[in-house]
Amino acid sequence: MALCTVIALVQSNKLPGYALEKKLGDFTRAVRIRRAVISRASTTRSLEHSALPMEHYDYARCCENVIGYTPLPLGVAGPIRIDGALYHIPMATTEGCLVASTSRGCKAISAGGRGATTVVVDDGMTRGPAVEFTSICEAADCKRWIEHEDGFDALADAFNATSRFARLQSVKVMLAGPLAFVRFKATTGDAMGMNMISKGVERALETLADRYPEMRVVSISGNTCSDKKPAAVNWIEGRGKSTLAECTIAGDVVESTTVADLVRLNTAVAGSIGGFNAHASNIDPAQNCMTLMQAVNDGRDLHLSCTMPCIEVGTIGEPGAHARQLARIICASVMAGELSLCAALAAGHLVQSHMAHNRATKPAASTPVPGSCLRS
Amino acid sequence: MALCTVIALVQSNKLPGYALEKKLGDFTRAVRIRRAVISRASTTRSLEHSALPMEHYDYARCCENVIGYTPLPLGVAGPIRIDGALYHIPMATTEGCLVASTSRGCKAISAGGRGATTVVVDDGMTRGPAVEFTSICEAADCKRWIEHEDGFDALADAFNATSRFARLQSVKVMLAGPLAFVRFKATTGDAMGMNMISKGVERALETLADRYPEMRVVSISGNTCSDKKPAAVNWIEGRGKSTLAECTIAGDVVESTTVADLVRLNTAVAGSIGGFNAHASNIDPAQNCMTLMQAVNDGRDLHLSCTMPCIEVGTIGEPGAHARQLARIICASVMAGELSLCAALAAGHLVQSHMAHNRATKPAASTPVPGSCLRS
Amino acid sequence: MALCTVIALVQSNKLPGYALEKKLGDFTRAVRIRRAVISRASTTRSLEHSALPMEHYDYARCCENVIGYTPLPLGVAGPIRIDGALYHIPMATTEGCLVASTSRGCKAISAGGRGATTVVVDDGMTRGPAVEFTSICEAADCKRWIEHEDGFDALADAFNATSRFARLQSVKVMLAGPLAFVRFKATTGDAMGMNMISKGVERALETLADRYPEMRVVSISGNTCSDKKPAAVNWIEGRGKSTLAECTIAGDVVESTTVADLVRLNTAVAGSIGGFNAHASNIDPAQNCMTLMQAVNDGRDLHLSCTMPCIEVGTIGEPGAHARQLARIICASVMAGELSLCAALAAGHLVQSHMAHNRATKPAASTPVPGSCLRS
Amino acid sequence: MALCTVIALVQSNKLPGYALEKKLGDFTRAVRIRRAVISRASTTRSLEHSALPMEHYDYARCCENVIGYTPLPLGVAGPIRIDGALYHIPMATTEGCLVASTSRGCKAISAGGRGATTVVVDDGMTRGPAVEFTSICEAADCKRWIEHEDGFDALADAFNATSRFARLQSVKVMLAGPLAFVRFKATTGDAMGMNMISKGVERALETLADRYPEMRVVSISGNTCSDKKPAAVNWIEGRGKSTLAECTIAGDVVESTTVADLVRLNTAVAGSIGGFNAHASNIDPAQNCMTLMQAVNDGRDLHLSCTMPCIEVGTIGEPGAHARQLARIICASVMAGELSLCAALAAGHLVQSHMAHNRATKPAASTPVPGSCLRS
Repeated sequence: MALCTVIALVQSNKLPGYALEKKLGDFTRAVRIRRAVISRASTTRSLEHSALPMEHYDYARCCENVIGYTPLPLGVAGPIRIDGALYHIPMATTEGCLVASTSRGCKAISAGGRGATTVVVDDGMTRGPAVEFTSICEAADCKRWIEHEDGFDALADAFNATSRFARLQSVKVMLAGPLAFVRFKATTGDAMGMNMISKGVERALETLADRYPEMRVVSISGNTCSDKKPAAVNWIEGRGKSTLAECTIAGDVVESTTVADLVRLNTAVAGSIGGFNAHASNIDPAQNCMTLMQAVNDGRDLHLSCTMPCIEVGTIGEPGAHARQLARIICASVMAGELSLCAALAAGHLVQSHMAHNRATKPAASTPVPGSCLRS
Repeated sequence: MALCTVIALVQSNKLPGYALEKKLGDFTRAVRIRRAVISRASTTRSLEHSALPMEHYDYARCCENVIGYTPLPLGVAGPIRIDGALYHIPMATTEGCLVASTSRGCKAISAGGRGATTVVVDDGMTRGPAVEFTSICEAADCKRWIEHEDGFDALADAFNATSRFARLQSVKVMLAGPLAFVRFKATTGDAMGMNMISKGVERALETLADRYPEMRVVSISGNTCSDKKPAAVNWIEGRGKSTLAECTIAGDVVESTTVADLVRLNTAVAGSIGGFNAHASNIDPAQNCMTLMQAVNDGRDLHLSCTMPCIEVGTIGEPGAHARQLARIICASVMAGELSLCAALAAGHLVQSHMAHNRATKPAASTPVPGSCLRS
Repeated sequence: MALCTVIALVQSNKLPGYALEKKLGDFTRAVRIRRAVISRASTTRSLEHSALPMEHYDYARCCENVIGYTPLPLGVAGPIRIDGALYHIPMATTEGCLVASTSRGCKAISAGGRGATTVVVDDGMTRGPAVEFTSICEAADCKRWIEHEDGFDALADAFNATSRFARLQSVKVMLAGPLAFVRFKATTGDAMGMNMISKGVERALETLADRYPEMRVVSISGNTCSDKKPAAVNWIEGRGKSTLAECTIAGDVVESTTVADLVRLNTAVAGSIGGFNAHASNIDPAQNCMTLMQAVNDGRDLHLSCTMPCIEVGTIGEPGAHARQLARIICASVMAGELSLCAALAAGHLVQSHMAHNRATKPAASTPVPGSCLRS
Repeated sequence: MALCTVIALVQSNKLPGYALEKKLGDFTRAVRIRRAVISRASTTRSLEHSALPMEHYDYARCCENVIGYTPLPLGVAGPIRIDGALYHIPMATTEGCLVASTSRGCKAISAGGRGATTVVVDDGMTRGPAVEFTSICEAADCKRWIEHEDGFDALADAFNATSRFARLQSVKVMLAGPLAFVRFKATTGDAMGMNMISKGVERALETLADRYPEMRVVSISGNTCSDKKPAAVNWIEGRGKSTLAECTIAGDVVESTTVADLVRLNTAVAGSIGGFNAHASNIDPAQNCMTLMQAVNDGRDLHLSCTMPCIEVGTIGEPGAHARQLARIICASVMAGELSLCAALAAGHLVQSHMAHNRATKPAASTPVPGSCLRS
């Protein structure tokens, strides 16, 4: 069928736009047609021939109504020594200076063979449905039952039957009047696990409903998950991989700023929940990160640690590629970024370095920013 | 120079990896060499010939030490009627169902010609340096001076002199003992403006230092910015474009769930700051979003609003492309996503829809999720 | 010894003021002398003959360096029906209108024989020492051990040996780098229990120190207790008696305001953690209270609930006087206060009622405030 | 009329209990009768002849339905040197050790003639009504108008006309969809000022209603006041007297603990908003207090500061008795309490000192706690 013919069919609603892939088989062609239809219906008419790339791409991905793809440049920071091994840190970003800055942090952490130590202290993905009872007494009875062995075992049997990997670890019930927020926490193998755990939760809720026929499920996700939102419950209970990293930076690596200033930068004024960090979200969106710094060895050296209770990641199950290991690498990388930015802030060179790297007409090289307080 | 020769030079540290672009001129070639060097030094040796794309890309971007690019599929949700006009919403994501779900929200909001209304109530980017005084009295004197006309005008003159666009709007001083967190808020034209404002702040701090010679700048960014971190100060003071969107959904569009349940979903248990939302961060990472729902017209219809005090965006200055307009579109799109997910949650169809769309071997079509409580 | 003689001795530091009680035996006389000494050394010289009462009081109380006592008028609100029985609520306050307002709430809740239902869902006082390890790995090992049966049993044996009443319930370990915040939760019989639990914690820390000789106790109370401070950890984990109360108010009791408005009043803007309430602290300082209201019975009636996870109270062990019962009464009383104030707010009569009751030259009677939206 | 006769009248509801004072004129007699009636209707029947005092008291106070008074022992801490002058700090408490502990803090702060420095940086009481508009656009228009000179002046004229003392300082409008939370801030002379400001707000809202006839007042107090609740808005915007205190403690005053440990105690884990403190609420219930400690003079000395943005106090207008001065004294006293408790915590003597002072059969003397890390 000629291109213009198909375009006409979609424009006249004879062929639904979302069905183009199925109809044509040819994904790239479907994308081209969709671009044309949307472009010609728009005021700017710019999409059809825009620079947005669409060729050379395998569209067998999880996205609907596709019109192309957005290429994000992938830089490499590091290497950084983590638990004895060296790692390069891939970072997909268009923020100039971020890769270079993280690299300086990696260098400072790895200097003198020291490197970062990491540990995963907890591992479980969560889902927190909201259920409603006819009275606070029934809600309280449910909380007691679930938190007792009998209730937990019953829910665990139902939950674990839904997957080879998902294993229920704990269930926490928070009441708000007759509403109960039941926070299920489970291991999910190497997957991030939201879907896996959601299936388990649905089955467990059926078991709960058998015991409490008057219970009503208000929502499978009732804001204590707490997914994609910074929340105290995640900070305190943990979500995903609860990971820590630490390192000690020899004083001679830190120039032109005092360790004390780095410590002072953590003064909590803005009113965040769950610890204070400089820009953890630049490296991991989990955001719940507490960066602690303190002078050690009679103030000569700087001890740095990052505590991240909620790293929510998954990996595909290649041998050797494990989600916990990924969490450790993320946490150490966050620490590298924290060190570098805090050092730059304390040395007052944030702006220059951004000036130097952003809007570069050519790719900026990871040369040390002049005056940076970390030796490169 | 032969590829292997250059690789050898880098491997032997005769040529620094970050200088490849400058040395070779050919960006793509530089990337190929960098991949080879890193790959051959690794254990898996997989990078050099990995599927990570590197061709057909303009590397003149803000990233360092590049090894290729990550293509994110770009789907289109909508159209959605915003302030009378129809918009398609591009969404770069690999989360199956997100575009389809947002599209259902757009459809429900636009049904019957209604659509979303939006408004921008505040507009100013912030930077909050931390400065230290020798006493709380000197810190208090500085706060008084800045919050008085004389001090503000002096800082504004210095600040505004650094850019054609940046205009100082307000300065808020929060004290923590002898530390002062000085939060500068300024308009930045169509740019997101962090660098612009940082330059202005540096100049303003010089003016402040002239008056308070004993004042010491601890950091140009002292955690009240508050950049890339959810913080109460952003929620209460606003950051970037403070934007609201609202719409009324006719009851007949909302099936199989009661409006009351949608309202109940906002019960605040998890302990977030700055309002509660379902998954605003899926559409805008600003995250500070309060989604409010209430029954109107004697409970027949649903009134929905999203309040986002901190949308931090910029646009390139094409005629007609303005940051405030972008903020309005983002806010309305967030509202579409909120409506769709909340409706799916209340109807209990979250899991099925994810099952249907994720891990798709072929691009999933935005067919209505069976049983979704929003008509498609 | 003549009064003036003793005064002279204290003035000349020959007799320390704090030792007066021990020296004289006569408490009231000691107080008179202390007042004289402080008064004569002051500029206003008013204390010695001030109206502050000192006679007719048994000074065998827990306070040092006493100069008299502050009499707080004790009013009685109620009666209120709680779990079937009627209670009068004593309230020590000088805030006019508070007792009268609470009484109106009690009346509305008890009307038609309904009354409040209450439940205690958790009971345990907490103490959260901060300990420091030499590395995050050692800290993580400690967390694992404590959260495993072996560790918990070892700590419980040590803890429980310190008291007949204190029984360790759970131990939660939160890490912040090499710092570990170990939150002990224990039942404490009818006592509020801070001292009891502190003793147990000290013993348990000795056991922990035997296993981790390099561990250092930074503080017996390390800000996760969290004592006398509103904190997310208390909201989420509970502290003291976690108590709920609920009731249903027939629409005909609620005048001149819509149930919807009462519900709207809970919109969360101010940025609190742990639920929103109107003035719970007026009746209980614990403050962590979430007041939920919703329309029921097709919007005719109002369902009201108060969720208070952190009621920290104790009672002396009189037969029948139990701390849990006290917590239930407090929670129901808070609910009465919430209902009355919210109703007054929604009806717009807050100010008049305060005008009517405060600065009263004679004790204000608990007459219904004109126009109050609760029938009296 | 014989006592029994009046009791009978009340029991038979012929005379309402709350009218006793008016009916009898004799307050104490009214209290005796009320006690009898309540007691005889109770199960324990203990109130009528209980130890709760009722004689020797002027009942012309702001409380309703009085049955006696609760005497709180009043101890004196200090003296403490504040801004050059010495003050004794009266503390009404039954918590053993609190006065003694605060006294040790006062002594350490005043040692060597140093003493505390204080400053009040902001002064204004707030009231935050919630009003609702028919659309976000109308709400936004109202926000713009109020934040513009014209709107503010109009509201200020209306507000200021209601009192000789209340003067409107600022109005902050926070939107949540079509709801507007209008936070009025005003000086209130020496009064705490809640009633004064409430009257002004009512008048200002009438002016607002003239301009926005479709605006509806949801509540005169809409949770941004934010009265008697810890809230981020109070921390960031201030409420009442925003006060700071600081002092430097010579190292030789601090024994048996390192300054570093005192600093470490502030690590933020519990998830509070608005700074971290040890037990500020023991001295002032405002609770929003950030206690900062840092080593100065090459780590020899300890710099201590308390930042309290929300001290809500009033004084009766005696010459010389001013609310701001009271706020300074409160802030310095809080600092004394913070220093003493933190020092005791770091030295590990909290429990012993409580053991020593609580449940005392005789008034405990403010003898230094053995091993306390503050010299007495």
